[in-house]
Amino acid sequence: MTDLAAVKAALRTQAVETPSWAYGNSGTRFKVFAQEGVPRTPQEKLEDAAKVNEFTGVAPTVALHIPWDRVDDFGALGKFAEDHGLKLGAINSNTFQDDDYRLGSVCHPDAAVRRKALDHLLECVDIMDATGSADLKLWFADGTNYPGQDDLSARQDRLGEALAAVYERLGDGQRMLLEYKFFEPAFYATDVPDWGTAYAHCLKLGPKAQVVVDTGHHAPGTNIEFIVATLLREGKLGAFDFNSRFYADDDLMVGAADPFQLFRIMYEVIRGGGFTADVAFMLDQCHNIEAKIPAIIRSVMNVQEATAKALLVDREALAAAQGAGDVLEANAVVMDAYNTDVRPLLRELREEQGLAPDPISAYRGSGWQERIVAERVGGQQAGWGA
Amino acid sequence: MTDLAAVKAALRTQAVETPSWAYGNSGTRFKVFAQEGVPRTPQEKLEDAAKVNEFTGVAPTVALHIPWDRVDDFGALGKFAEDHGLKLGAINSNTFQDDDYRLGSVCHPDAAVRRKALDHLLECVDIMDATGSADLKLWFADGTNYPGQDDLSARQDRLGEALAAVYERLGDGQRMLLEYKFFEPAFYATDVPDWGTAYAHCLKLGPKAQVVVDTGHHAPGTNIEFIVATLLREGKLGAFDFNSRFYADDDLMVGAADPFQLFRIMYEVIRGGGFTADVAFMLDQCHNIEAKIPAIIRSVMNVQEATAKALLVDREALAAAQGAGDVLEANAVVMDAYNTDVRPLLRELREEQGLAPDPISAYRGSGWQERIVAERVGGQQAGWGA
Amino acid sequence: MTDLAAVKAALRTQAVETPSWAYGNSGTRFKVFAQEGVPRTPQEKLEDAAKVNEFTGVAPTVALHIPWDRVDDFGALGKFAEDHGLKLGAINSNTFQDDDYRLGSVCHPDAAVRRKALDHLLECVDIMDATGSADLKLWFADGTNYPGQDDLSARQDRLGEALAAVYERLGDGQRMLLEYKFFEPAFYATDVPDWGTAYAHCLKLGPKAQVVVDTGHHAPGTNIEFIVATLLREGKLGAFDFNSRFYADDDLMVGAADPFQLFRIMYEVIRGGGFTADVAFMLDQCHNIEAKIPAIIRSVMNVQEATAKALLVDREALAAAQGAGDVLEANAVVMDAYNTDVRPLLRELREEQGLAPDPISAYRGSGWQERIVAERVGGQQAGWGA
Amino acid sequence: MTDLAAVKAALRTQAVETPSWAYGNSGTRFKVFAQEGVPRTPQEKLEDAAKVNEFTGVAPTVALHIPWDRVDDFGALGKFAEDHGLKLGAINSNTFQDDDYRLGSVCHPDAAVRRKALDHLLECVDIMDATGSADLKLWFADGTNYPGQDDLSARQDRLGEALAAVYERLGDGQRMLLEYKFFEPAFYATDVPDWGTAYAHCLKLGPKAQVVVDTGHHAPGTNIEFIVATLLREGKLGAFDFNSRFYADDDLMVGAADPFQLFRIMYEVIRGGGFTADVAFMLDQCHNIEAKIPAIIRSVMNVQEATAKALLVDREALAAAQGAGDVLEANAVVMDAYNTDVRPLLRELREEQGLAPDPISAYRGSGWQERIVAERVGGQQAGWGA
Repeated sequence: MTDLAAVKAALRTQAVETPSWAYGNSGTRFKVFAQEGVPRTPQEKLEDAAKVNEFTGVAPTVALHIPWDRVDDFGALGKFAEDHGLKLGAINSNTFQDDDYRLGSVCHPDAAVRRKALDHLLECVDIMDATGSADLKLWFADGTNYPGQDDLSARQDRLGEALAAVYERLGDGQRMLLEYKFFEPAFYATDVPDWGTAYAHCLKLGPKAQVVVDTGHHAPGTNIEFIVATLLREGKLGAFDFNSRFYADDDLMVGAADPFQLFRIMYEVIRGGGFTADVAFMLDQCHNIEAKIPAIIRSVMNVQEATAKALLVDREALAAAQGAGDVLEANAVVMDAYNTDVRPLLRELREEQGLAPDPISAYRGSGWQERIVAERVGGQQAGWGA
Repeated sequence: MTDLAAVKAALRTQAVETPSWAYGNSGTRFKVFAQEGVPRTPQEKLEDAAKVNEFTGVAPTVALHIPWDRVDDFGALGKFAEDHGLKLGAINSNTFQDDDYRLGSVCHPDAAVRRKALDHLLECVDIMDATGSADLKLWFADGTNYPGQDDLSARQDRLGEALAAVYERLGDGQRMLLEYKFFEPAFYATDVPDWGTAYAHCLKLGPKAQVVVDTGHHAPGTNIEFIVATLLREGKLGAFDFNSRFYADDDLMVGAADPFQLFRIMYEVIRGGGFTADVAFMLDQCHNIEAKIPAIIRSVMNVQEATAKALLVDREALAAAQGAGDVLEANAVVMDAYNTDVRPLLRELREEQGLAPDPISAYRGSGWQERIVAERVGGQQAGWGA
Repeated sequence: MTDLAAVKAALRTQAVETPSWAYGNSGTRFKVFAQEGVPRTPQEKLEDAAKVNEFTGVAPTVALHIPWDRVDDFGALGKFAEDHGLKLGAINSNTFQDDDYRLGSVCHPDAAVRRKALDHLLECVDIMDATGSADLKLWFADGTNYPGQDDLSARQDRLGEALAAVYERLGDGQRMLLEYKFFEPAFYATDVPDWGTAYAHCLKLGPKAQVVVDTGHHAPGTNIEFIVATLLREGKLGAFDFNSRFYADDDLMVGAADPFQLFRIMYEVIRGGGFTADVAFMLDQCHNIEAKIPAIIRSVMNVQEATAKALLVDREALAAAQGAGDVLEANAVVMDAYNTDVRPLLRELREEQGLAPDPISAYRGSGWQERIVAERVGGQQAGWGA
Repeated sequence: MTDLAAVKAALRTQAVETPSWAYGNSGTRFKVFAQEGVPRTPQEKLEDAAKVNEFTGVAPTVALHIPWDRVDDFGALGKFAEDHGLKLGAINSNTFQDDDYRLGSVCHPDAAVRRKALDHLLECVDIMDATGSADLKLWFADGTNYPGQDDLSARQDRLGEALAAVYERLGDGQRMLLEYKFFEPAFYATDVPDWGTAYAHCLKLGPKAQVVVDTGHHAPGTNIEFIVATLLREGKLGAFDFNSRFYADDDLMVGAADPFQLFRIMYEVIRGGGFTADVAFMLDQCHNIEAKIPAIIRSVMNVQEATAKALLVDREALAAAQGAGDVLEANAVVMDAYNTDVRPLLRELREEQGLAPDPISAYRGSGWQERIVAERVGGQQAGWGA
């Protein structure tokens, strides 16, 4: 029997970090469809993030992306966040949008370009010092498009060198989260294409280096929860970048494409002790055609619902069925939890916390969307290029 | 025994259409790396295309993309092309870059948006009348990102309606080429996701409607040459959009990722009578990080080499082995042709045609690249957005 | 608002056909793990199927596979079925287990082998006459393992010829259901690899020929519900072979790998009128390691649950959101139905029908499993090879 | 400039191990098509392998599979091999064909089953002592078919324990080669699904544990040569199981599906020092429909041809182009080598070694096939089940 009070208690501790860039415009290589009311500044992104936290109660931190969120005074930005009930979260580096990075950043054949990229990474640690962020999230667009274009192994050497330099720079309580990605924007070989590569680098670096699992960054058919279980077992799971995909790195709302997979992932997180440990749960999504703030609220709720279901798994009954080799019963225990409608439980929880039971309609009724559409006129809307 | 003279004769008839947009800048959603010397106008694209034709001898036509190549006087543009030894080729429509197309174009739920998209398609036929182009190439970015977003079947109805209206407008000697694509930019359901959907529409439309096979637009593992053979057998193969992919729609140089696949495709084209029939061989690629003109020359050469190898297949020996059920021998006949180095044959052919044997080094020695880098300064470089 | 009474009424009409071979042993190329109590005869398979129907109330027919279920007197077998509350369902042909079929059956280069295969198919229609089965289900293992092994297009000609001969033989009220499969056992080119190929053949044959969608037979990432919607729109969806897959044709219990996908498929079935029309809902699975009868009961329940959720979609609200272009709301309407726990509704329905509310525990308590384990000793257990 | 003499010298040192089981019957779950002349005993397999070595000159060792090749006196079998110009190669364990292994072997929830599997592995090391084999190749079919069926992490613990026990038992000059596989026969989670998992285990075990790359065991789109480069860089590449695939683990002849990929893999092997180091090059294939001995000869030749092409890469020119960031030129250097027809070079090499220039026709002319078809009558043909 599952203890509902314990489930609720666990859900009360949950925190999902939202990414500043999800509040801005995004799109595909074919077109970015701008939306009305989109933030023009990091501060406006934080205002929107504050609404997500206000209505869900579980989104208290916001990830920044440098240079998209660069400000003169990060201390002031942190204060601004606090004034809005938020904290600044992970610092995300960007080594893919400078013209110098056509052939890579820290893996580039030219040492001068590598140095430039490294300096950016070190600057990000400086920013962490200023914001009090604990996590540096590193995703490298580095790779090659054609066989022979560059030496695969030499690129790993260069990557290792840069990572070591950044690792060295990390202060106490700071860690480096290394993301892997199957492909895109590199189309032949990506320099950190899979968890094994990220893991091997992190292992050499030391305990402050951990792996980020972005749910959209795998080959077709990959069993992501297996990777989660393995990284937790090895003490190397640092964070999630949540989103969902039907095909590639589609960056749809987490839980939108395969909610059962999200549930299985959350089950392994809980099973492996990752829920109470230092694993960061972040969103990394693009709301290309749907309204951004409610899409982020929905995404946070999807993570909550998957977590609630995973917490509901009757682990005693499961262990018994597994031990007895009863395939159907073991699967049934898991499916029982998944098939449960946890929305009433979550509504109840929200009400206990003084929140509206339905965050989406509460947001819709709040007038915020109308206000930002009316007020955020003129200026340069935030997006990937700015 | 293969008749080398016949192989050469066939190769002399080959024509590969290059796309105007491949001469401009392109990139991924993460970054477009601009290159020096890139054309600013349709005329400058044609100048570059003329160089590709000059050095390969087999790229006499250029596909246009509307509105990227819109000019006031298409007759004059055709004359400009002729003055450069070229003809204008297929007209490619664009129903994905207007803000109105966020939820689709001809499949959009709003009739006004559909009408706008249809008007654009009809304008493209007007342009065909002006340019003398025979082919209207239709690729629709239409689709949905989330289950439920729109009604899949209603969208097919709307699509069918638009296609019928365009079909009706086609003049004598004009045809409509319908492209399919597995995914992107739509991430849940694409409205023309596979050859079957394109085929079903073309079948209803009539003989002037045929299917385009873009080699990058398939699910992982799809046997493309089977589709080619099937469409040829049904009289419904209209054209190729050549490029190559390791993962998704990577748009690398044709033949760069899987040259053996390209050979197998060309073999089925020849086997099915597509080489001498009205199948258009077009490139559709993005040269994001490599120099554009030599990349296009290399791509044209890759198609030539695959064609030469496919022509070398000893079809008599193959039929004998197939008839005898000799799996290894039948495969060996095909591999013998593939393993042949056809570059000497093609060098010879070029010399017989008064061309330099090595188009790449001839281009590099021509001074054209230096000239355009020097001269094409200022202005707005061509790209997907312009 | 959804009308619960209408939902229940629809669920009362549902019928899922179970396959005789799922009651026998099965496995992979590595090993078949035999289970105790497995049937030795077609009659014993029907006895097991009767239990599935007894406890679920929605599995009244059983598909036969020839020659695995060949008996001397099919009339008597039909009578045996009726005595057990069942009817005989689709007749499934087998043209892949004779030594002559090493290089194919109806597509084989040798006319004598093709004739043999065709004779088998015609015999299957004879059996339909005897059993009163309406459906002939055709799956061909035909294909090639190596490029060049055989002529892809000639094989299509041979296939078309055989299908035409069988079609000609069909009586009133009989139809031919053509299945497609992405790969396996052929590993280079499968002769009916996708819905487009099956559709093109069925279109030429006529109204009695329709396509079977086996949910495990697609390329990675394929949007199956799109195919379902398209085939329904064209009047060419004949049947489903339900099962589930994580990777390839894994033949796991339907709904086990991606229950959300199953729900989406059932939604398109209902949306497209397939639920009330003549679409046959069949299971085609392998219970390699789990207990067979309860696995089949669970599978039938999974189809029921997905159907119930699909029926719960508030189509009025959905149409309104779609018409308004409200991506999030339209998606939310669909997700609301999916997130509903329909198990109470189904328990209620069963009790209204005089059934136990939980079919699995009712079966477990029935003593049937113990009885067959005790009684079915000796003899040759049924499996794919027998 | 490439030094042809050095290329030839390198090719003279090449050795490809053939697997005993490839000489026996194999098939799919649908059917095993028996062939005439197939060996009945390990000795007859060695006789066939001797022919492959006789005609290719580069296949001097044969991998054994226990229990399929179990004999009373392995010393005598080794002597038999030597009398036929061969040595016994890697010992391959089998923990998937006993009825006890339905839910796994070394990862099974029941300690007694795990002990049984471990005993088998230890017996394999005993056999290595007897045969003088240096390599124990471990492939585990272990995994689960359904979410929840067993605890993913506990299974890793059990796996680690078994591997440690076997590692402990290894003598001097013996190593353990751990294979990974994406899926099949487990269809939800495989216990060693990817190189990262195998690598993590080998790292903990120590220097005698290395990873096997089976070219057919990856997710769609995986860049295998990247894994090869990475494992070589880490000193953890132990061996290859060569075969080729279009879809999954198709086990076609190596080089048959994507010869360009095989070339790229061999290039990384050479680049990373793996050609001269202790990397074992083994075939692991199934000749389901083609004649077995010539298929194996062809496979060995395909590896040779890919190796020759990889050796022909002008590494000086490549490094220069890579250093200059010349994407097209770097790619062209690689493609130049790939496009070279190396068959004349290999024919020359064979003649220098006193071999017939064309191994396939030499074998066909040798009368061996006719002899084994005539003589190997009666008895039990070798296959996966025996």
